[in-house]
Amino acid sequence: MVLLAGCAGTSQDLLQEPLRGTGDLGVVIERAKGQLQIVETTGMTQLATVTGLGDLSHASAVFSRDGRYAYVFGRDGGITRVDLLQARITHRIIQAGNSIGGAISQDGRVVAAQNYEPGGIRLFDAGTLEPLAEIPAIGADGRRSKVVGLADLPGKRLAASLFESGEIWIIDIADPRNPAVTKLKAGREPYDGLVTPDGRWYLAGLFGEDGLALVDLWKTPLEVTKILSGYGRGEEKLPVYKMPHLRGWAMAQGQAWLPAIGRHELLIANVAQGWKESGRIALLGQPVFVMARPDGRQVWVNFAFPDNGKVQVIDSATRQVVRTLEPCRGVLHMEFTPKGESVWLSCRDDDRVMIYDTATLAPVKTLAADNPSGIFLTVRAQRFGM
Amino acid sequence: MVLLAGCAGTSQDLLQEPLRGTGDLGVVIERAKGQLQIVETTGMTQLATVTGLGDLSHASAVFSRDGRYAYVFGRDGGITRVDLLQARITHRIIQAGNSIGGAISQDGRVVAAQNYEPGGIRLFDAGTLEPLAEIPAIGADGRRSKVVGLADLPGKRLAASLFESGEIWIIDIADPRNPAVTKLKAGREPYDGLVTPDGRWYLAGLFGEDGLALVDLWKTPLEVTKILSGYGRGEEKLPVYKMPHLRGWAMAQGQAWLPAIGRHELLIANVAQGWKESGRIALLGQPVFVMARPDGRQVWVNFAFPDNGKVQVIDSATRQVVRTLEPCRGVLHMEFTPKGESVWLSCRDDDRVMIYDTATLAPVKTLAADNPSGIFLTVRAQRFGM
Repeated sequence: MVLLAGCAGTSQDLLQEPLRGTGDLGVVIERAKGQLQIVETTGMTQLATVTGLGDLSHASAVFSRDGRYAYVFGRDGGITRVDLLQARITHRIIQAGNSIGGAISQDGRVVAAQNYEPGGIRLFDAGTLEPLAEIPAIGADGRRSKVVGLADLPGKRLAASLFESGEIWIIDIADPRNPAVTKLKAGREPYDGLVTPDGRWYLAGLFGEDGLALVDLWKTPLEVTKILSGYGRGEEKLPVYKMPHLRGWAMAQGQAWLPAIGRHELLIANVAQGWKESGRIALLGQPVFVMARPDGRQVWVNFAFPDNGKVQVIDSATRQVVRTLEPCRGVLHMEFTPKGESVWLSCRDDDRVMIYDTATLAPVKTLAADNPSGIFLTVRAQRFGM
Repeated sequence: MVLLAGCAGTSQDLLQEPLRGTGDLGVVIERAKGQLQIVETTGMTQLATVTGLGDLSHASAVFSRDGRYAYVFGRDGGITRVDLLQARITHRIIQAGNSIGGAISQDGRVVAAQNYEPGGIRLFDAGTLEPLAEIPAIGADGRRSKVVGLADLPGKRLAASLFESGEIWIIDIADPRNPAVTKLKAGREPYDGLVTPDGRWYLAGLFGEDGLALVDLWKTPLEVTKILSGYGRGEEKLPVYKMPHLRGWAMAQGQAWLPAIGRHELLIANVAQGWKESGRIALLGQPVFVMARPDGRQVWVNFAFPDNGKVQVIDSATRQVVRTLEPCRGVLHMEFTPKGESVWLSCRDDDRVMIYDTATLAPVKTLAADNPSGIFLTVRAQRFGM
């Protein structure tokens, strides 16, 4: 009774059996309703719905290191801490006017938000959401920039990019009340960033010029180099229906698989050879998310309008498209199970989540969901940059 | 009350708060007493002790995909399923006379044991430990071999090595009641094996000859190649105080870091260049476990007698030994936290577990334990070959 008493509050349903492992849990964002579903990937079922999360457009989630709590970042600057076992909100704050996601530190103690308005990064205690520090994104131009591409790094650090001032900041948060910032000149208008799964490389995509800004986080002193000068919108200035999401970039067999901007292509870069381009693969449309199955053997791609109902699967060994799937109208996001036997797709326009077996490439289950957008599984707690 | 009622039985202590996440849980084997401790890595505390696990010499553990259950494999052929949340044994069987560990399938549905006596592999339902199939290890020589090096692979497969007959078997367990075996000639006396974290390469160490047997699991048809002909005891036939544990082999930055046999060295092999040797690092003694921190920036090594009280830490970027630690007498095993901010060491002869901060290389906590041997964290549920 003590346990269940905690369940009253914001949840619509209660979990039938709150005592359970959290390694196979996750959340599906139901954007229009400001709510999320708690799901589990073993039986592939929905466990509960949690309401009252505010504006969930462009929402994302990170997880506590025990896998029990999701931190959901909304576009309205809200951070909501959800107890997945009791299907309820434990803490909720509005910490900025306009926010674009967040991260959790390597040790799980600090939650960080990246904000557009006011431009900066704010740090919070992961247990209480008590504010720890504010880092205004005042660049070399003396003004506040929008912050994008926030990622947690090994060594209790964060990386982030400043859009207007064109900088990459590496932030030591070992003492989260006194963060120490290293500021690097990155290039024109970084619009998103990511860290590779090993935590070594931070990359920022540039909106204002072709190429990417790269930081080797193993080097001292830190410095930015430019790579893949052919990456970007190029001289033709192709219409771009949707900028690719860099978080989806795939690493497999020492190669980075990147969505081209505007073009119907993937680029492949060889990490050991200074991120030099090592190939391109023709696709059916403009790629948005490019994600490797956890073992790296497959790379899955979804697309911008008008091809957003399709998904292509690439064999990373042969570099061939092996299957074109048409799961539904509007595939918005993809998330692999921890060992990659399945992938979950959010079909926004058809109000459902579809689960595919990655060996047979056949659908194995469909779950109802209200305009689902992001799908986030607790395995992210164990990985960098997620 | 319903929840706690299940706790009666074999556990010595009950968990204070059974409703908790499982992402930061693990077990410490207390070999001499046939018991284990349940621990958590966020607060770095012991939660409970579970007794009655039989002969735990050379014991190892795998985890259910939700992180709730540990499957502990004992030398006596016992498999014990332990509920980490209720600190109790749910199932226990003796399935062979002499066993050397096990694995869990990619989808978490099948637990497999590798047996010396009678030589073979047995498959069990992960929920009930009901037997599903027996695979006698009858090699090309017509006799039963001891089975070593069992590992789970992508595509719902297992790999294993047969000691006497010198074979590697790749076993499809998509239908676990009817496993399909592909048999490959490996070389003389494979004594252990591993799969790389990406699930692509299976390697078996050879006791009867120098070099290693390698299978590229991405190739069709499957075949064995020999690599690193300089790896092994060599012509000098150095005394080997303890054979290295292959499961500890480290992958970092596209290189494999391998413990030399007998020699006071690490070997480094470049995976993309056909596993060709790319360097050696001098060590203070004969290495046993060689393990990469999850981000690959550090490689930690422990040693055979008489250097088993020491641990060396290597910077994988510079390939230099950066620190020699002397934690205690007899460091038996090492386990990194999921994102690698800490490492847990079992100090068998000093009856304690020591936890080090991997950034400062300083000890941060010491926990009492009775003759601790293996330390296994639930993050293994999310990784291949663990």
